[in-house]
Order: sequence, then structure tokens, then C-alpha cells
Amino acid sequence: MDPIGRTLLEQAAQLAAHTEDAPRMTRLYLSEQHRGCGDLLIAWMTAAGMTAGFDALGNVVGRYAGTDPAAPALMLGSHLDTVRNAGRYDGMLGVLSAIACVAELNRRGRRFPGAIEVIAFGDEEGVRFGVTMIGSGAMAGRFRPDWLDKTDRDDITMRDALLAFGADPDGWPALARDFAHVRAYAELHIEQGPVLLEAGLPAGIVSAIAGSTRVMVDLAGRAGHAGTVPMNARRDALAAAAEMVLAGENVAREWPTPLVCTTGKLDVNGGAINVVPGKTTFSFDVRSGDDAQREAAVRELRRRCEEIAARREVEIAWQTLLELPAAPCDGALRATLARAFETESVPVTELASGAGHDAMSFSGRTPIAMLFLRCGNGGISHHPDETVDADDIETGVRLFGRFIEMTAGETPAGETTAGETPAPHTAVVG
Amino acid sequence: MDPIGRTLLEQAAQLAAHTEDAPRMTRLYLSEQHRGCGDLLIAWMTAAGMTAGFDALGNVVGRYAGTDPAAPALMLGSHLDTVRNAGRYDGMLGVLSAIACVAELNRRGRRFPGAIEVIAFGDEEGVRFGVTMIGSGAMAGRFRPDWLDKTDRDDITMRDALLAFGADPDGWPALARDFAHVRAYAELHIEQGPVLLEAGLPAGIVSAIAGSTRVMVDLAGRAGHAGTVPMNARRDALAAAAEMVLAGENVAREWPTPLVCTTGKLDVNGGAINVVPGKTTFSFDVRSGDDAQREAAVRELRRRCEEIAARREVEIAWQTLLELPAAPCDGALRATLARAFETESVPVTELASGAGHDAMSFSGRTPIAMLFLRCGNGGISHHPDETVDADDIETGVRLFGRFIEMTAGETPAGETTAGETPAPHTAVVG
Repeated sequence: MDPIGRTLLEQAAQLAAHTEDAPRMTRLYLSEQHRGCGDLLIAWMTAAGMTAGFDALGNVVGRYAGTDPAAPALMLGSHLDTVRNAGRYDGMLGVLSAIACVAELNRRGRRFPGAIEVIAFGDEEGVRFGVTMIGSGAMAGRFRPDWLDKTDRDDITMRDALLAFGADPDGWPALARDFAHVRAYAELHIEQGPVLLEAGLPAGIVSAIAGSTRVMVDLAGRAGHAGTVPMNARRDALAAAAEMVLAGENVAREWPTPLVCTTGKLDVNGGAINVVPGKTTFSFDVRSGDDAQREAAVRELRRRCEEIAARREVEIAWQTLLELPAAPCDGALRATLARAFETESVPVTELASGAGHDAMSFSGRTPIAMLFLRCGNGGISHHPDETVDADDIETGVRLFGRFIEMTAGETPAGETTAGETPAPHTAVVG
Repeated sequence: MDPIGRTLLEQAAQLAAHTEDAPRMTRLYLSEQHRGCGDLLIAWMTAAGMTAGFDALGNVVGRYAGTDPAAPALMLGSHLDTVRNAGRYDGMLGVLSAIACVAELNRRGRRFPGAIEVIAFGDEEGVRFGVTMIGSGAMAGRFRPDWLDKTDRDDITMRDALLAFGADPDGWPALARDFAHVRAYAELHIEQGPVLLEAGLPAGIVSAIAGSTRVMVDLAGRAGHAGTVPMNARRDALAAAAEMVLAGENVAREWPTPLVCTTGKLDVNGGAINVVPGKTTFSFDVRSGDDAQREAAVRELRRRCEEIAARREVEIAWQTLLELPAAPCDGALRATLARAFETESVPVTELASGAGHDAMSFSGRTPIAMLFLRCGNGGISHHPDETVDADDIETGVRLFGRFIEMTAGETPAGETTAGETPAPHTAVVG
């Protein structure tokens, strides 16, 4: 095991101790565990030569000063919150890797014209208030003040939770960045899937964060007695749903470009073992890195579902809950990542991210880049079995470090090892 | 509208007023509504020339005396309890029709050697205590004393409910009949399905009450992120279940003999819109009038499910909850019913009953017969839309009356119009 890999695994274990339901791992936005995790990160950021603290919304922001206050900053980050019963690496590994890269620069006394920021966003998963990417959204200028009135399951508003945390609910406008002063946003993250694992590769370059369409389908057939209605007289809502679930699978499998379709929820309203289901509700979640392909696939899926519904004499109501466009990663930054891979003799591969990430918040605001690391255990994530190999972490930190140097170093002002009095970070409150 | 049809519809409406949740219709075993409904039935039975009362388990038993105390009785009946949010005719129409037939015999002063009994069983549906066919089961000698400890959803035991009703929890052994003194059991019932409706026939003769197999299938695949796991790397438990649900439908549709297969329950354990389901549980309910065909179909269905599970790398656990053999209706009684149809110029048709009925309790104890009447509204039952036409009721009462006369009149002792002092019905308690 390599020292950096082992160090980051140990740090991830220390962070994982900040959980509300040990031995499970659950860390929600603005909780006591958020505070404890943030305090550790601030200590590590400080040790890496950064000024660091909580901002007005509880994000942990570390800043490694540049030599030229006018030069744009490179933002690195990921999130510190988790889903319920989570793994240790989703989010946190990106923050720890970025800190490790800055620590190495600091050890070598290496600085660039622009500052390097490392941000641990307080909420990306959206578990507590049902709103996702609160931290990165605020920095991207996408925060909506009505979010402050969202409540958690104990009916505590986000505003009150921020006050109890010692943060500033009215401070969000100042968090929105002027992207004229941002060079790019880059994020290292575990893949959360099996693509790299199956390809036998430690890391990959993200081409785009997939866009998604979420649909709820309500079917109304005719309930009936399971013993008395002959097969040819049935209008079975569940059987129709079963055929549609398989249609979703088939559309995704047959699609000429990479695309996934999932039915994660299915409810037989009031189902009983001896009743032919009269109603069934289920979901579709369709994702692709290419918006036009996703939209075409959803149209084809809807057409097939309507054909199934008509043939089975079942009424269908199709409700689109969400249409989220894909966030393409910047071509120049992808090329820079590829050069880093080549320099480190790691085979270059690109893949789309099916999961959403904080990087999406910055899409359209500043160039974004993402570096994925291989997951073990079949690629499982959002689960205690989530794992990543120490050697892969070592590789990832080297690749990310090269990328940071190439990107921060390419600014016209050139690089320097001279010190800079760090500019105060206006949004740091804690 | 014919007077008898209209009278029975009005009686059914009066009984329907005895509901615990008007305007819905719900009448549970040993409830206040059971009492009110039974009191009305006792009054109508008495007016029809019967001695009548509640027995030790709350069944309403009416007895139209025969001329020869040693001659076997003909038992007619159905149930007075309902499912929740029920229709008005399931169960009750069989009791009302039997009373109408006896009333007509009484009006004509017509008696047979054996008595005619009309029984409204207190519980057939099993809603309150989770045990079905309590009343007919007791008379068939199938009552189990541990049933007295079963509790309803308010944790009231059947024993306490019997005591509160004024019945006798320890009186069940005396209810078990000596079938040497029973000629047959016959039941008129609504079809609860669309077969007669679609055939354009008012009534049909039941060939057998279908046997059934109930199975719960547990599938364990691998949960995953809906965006990050490519289609070809999934072990989606719900998609596997969907394919199995359709396999059930296909087996039933393709089967060379009449057979139905239903999935009424399906649960995606902890399902979320953005998670590939790792676990899914669902039911199969397979029914046929022919036990060997049902068993062969279940074997074929299991084989197909195991093939699907193997192909999709999903673990399958197959748990048989229930295996209930078919209850064939007596050939001689079916022939008698056919003669009644011919006499009344109603086309003879036979069909299996997919639903269970009190007649099943008596299968193997005494010859059983069932007469089905056409349901309206597509054959819906266990639902407020359950309906039956007044003219069909009239036809049913005429057919059932002919059948009763033919069956009760065929005893060697011959018929008579002379009166008999009714023998006391030992089990009548209320």
C-alpha cells in the first residue's frame, strides 16, 4: 500500500466516524456530524497551507493563495454530506484528494498566479431538505431563497438549521461567484459504477455528466377477482406495467448510444394476492450524456408504453417529473486530463457520468472537468460496501496533481514560488 | 321488473344498510352489523315458515321442517359477511334466493320428507380474524379450537367477540353435522366474473370450485445507482420480476385447459426512483378446476421463473403459501340442475368457479352443487359496482326452486303436504 493511498483511506475512516447512526454511515447537511467532519477538513486544509473555514451556508472552503490577486482561481471540490447508510468515499474522496494535491504543492513551495480553492460542499445529496446541490448551487448563483423554508422530517426549516449551525441564512447572495475570476471547476470522484472496474482501469476522464428524464406512469385497468376473471377478460394494470418496465429495459439496451433506463419504484395500489390489480404506478429514470439521444429514447419509450396500454385496454397517464440537460465536460480540460494520464502512463479512457455531481452546478458558468476513480465490489455506491483501492487513490492523486499543475500553470502570468498574502475569503463565517 | 327480482333487490338493499362505514359496505363477523343483518334474515326466514335463529358461532340457521325426521336434510346457504367496501350480492343473494324458494314452497304448503335448511354463514371472507369459512367449516367438522385465539385488528380474540355477540365459543363441536343425515349442500351465488355476461346467459352450473396454489417469490439481485450501472452490468430484481409476471400470464394464456394466474402483490423493497432495485417480492395465485392441470402449470411456471432468474443472475426463493385442491361439484346434482335449466328453457352451461365458496367446506362430506347468476358491470365483485339484474334473479330463483324440489323430492319416502312439528335445532342459541 502506498502512503498517500493509505493516508487518504485513514482520513476517510476518521470522517466516517462523524455519523448519526453508527455503525451505519449517515451525515446530513447542517448536522452535528457535518460540523465535526468540517472541523477535521479545516484542520487538514490549514495544515496543507490553506486558509479555511465554514461559509455562510456551511460549506467548508479552503484557499491556497496565488501570486496574482487578479488571476482567476481554480476551484476543486466535492461534497461532505451522504445518503443514509452510505459509503465513505462518495464525495469525501474528491475533497481529500484535492487537499492532498494542495498539500504536495505546499510542501514543494509551489504557487501559481491564481489561487486554488478546495471546497467541501455542505449538501449535494439533498437528503435532509429534499433540495440537492445546495452548496455548489449557491456558488454557481443558482440558490433560491425559498429553499430556506424547506423543512426536514422534524419540520425544522433550512433557515433555522443554518442559524443553529452558526451559519448565516441571509448570506447566500455573497456566495455567488463572479466567474470572470474563476479558471475552471474540477472534481475527482469515485465512479459509482462498474465501467472502470470491468475495463481494468484505475481512472477515467468524464466526457459529460448525463442528463436525465424522470417520469411517473399511472396505469388504470380494472380490478377483478383473481379466480373469476378469465385471462382474456382482464385489464391487469400490473401486467401492463411489467411489460412497460421491460420495454424500458429494451429501449436502453437496443439504443445505439450509451443510455440507461431504470424503474426503481413500482406500487400496486392496495394490492392483494387474490385481486387482479386495477391500478399500478411506476417510475422511469432515463439518462444519457447526449440530450438529443435521451429525448429520442424517451419518445420511443412513451410510444411503446402507449401501444402496450392501448393493446391491454389500460389507461395511461405519463407525467414528466424532471428534465435535466447533460453537463458536458470542457474539451480543453479533457485534453489536459488526457495529457496527465499519458504523463503518468495510465491508459486514457473517457466515460459519461450517470450520476449527478456538484460539477453540474457550474456547467455553463465555467469550464468543468471530472476525474473518476475505479470502485471495487462491482462498482457499488451509496452503500456500506462502497470501496476504492489504495493504489488507485495514489494514481488518482498523481493524475489530479498533474492536471492541477497543468491547468493552474497555463495562465499567462506564469507560475511562481513567491508567497502571497492570502486574500480574505469574504464568505468564510466559521 | 319481476316482483321476485325486485323484492330480492330491495331485501339486499335493506341488508346493505347494516354496514360499519356507510356509504361504503363492510360487514364483519360478529359485529353489530352482523347482528342487525341476522335479525332481518331471521324475520324473513320465520315469515317463510322456518324456525330460525343464531347458532353457537353466530351463523343464522333456518329450518323448514320435513315430514320424516329420519330423512336427510337438504342444506342451502351462503354467507352474510363481506369484504371491506364490498358489493351487496356476494353471499347475501344466495341466502335471499334460498329463503324465497322456501317461502314459495311454504305458500304452496309443499313439504318433503327431509327438512330444508337455509344457512347464512357468519364468516366466509375471513376479513376480521384472517380465517376463512368459519361458519361452514364448523358445520363440516373442520373448525379448529385455536381459531378462538385469533385476534382482529383491535386485538380482540374470536372467543371474546363470540361472547360479546351472545354466542357460545365452546359450542362449536355440536355444530359439526352427521352427514348421514344430510342429502346435499347447494349454493346459489353471483358468478363474480364475466363468463356468463359475455356468453349472454343468465345462469350457469358450476362444474367445480377451482383449487389454487399461492406462491410468494423473493428475488435478490444487486442494487445499484440508476445512472452509473450500464444495462449489461445490472442484476435488476424488478426487471426480473416483471419478466416473471408476464411468464405467469403467458403460462395461463397458453395452457390447454382453463386456468388463471395472477400477480396481485409486488413490492420493490425500499425502492427509489434513482436506484436499480436489488430486491423484489411478488405473488402468484394460480387456479384451476383440475388439480393435475394446476400442479403441472405451477411446475412449468416455476421452471420459467428459475430460467429467468439464472439468465439475469438474480437469486430466487420460491415459497408455496397454500395448496388447496379443487372441489368438484356432484355429477348427479349437476344433472339435476341441467334438468331444471331445460325445464325453464334456460340454455345449459357449465363453468368452474375461480372463487372459493362455503360449498368447498362440504366437499368430501356431502354432494355439493352450485348455481351461478350473471354479474353486471363486466363481472366485477368485491366492489361497490357489483350488480345483478332483477330478471336474472327471477330466473335464478325459478331454477333453484326447481332444483330444490327435484332434489328434496327424489327421496324414497316421497313427498307430502302434511305438517310436521319442527324438530328443535340443537345449535340455535340466539
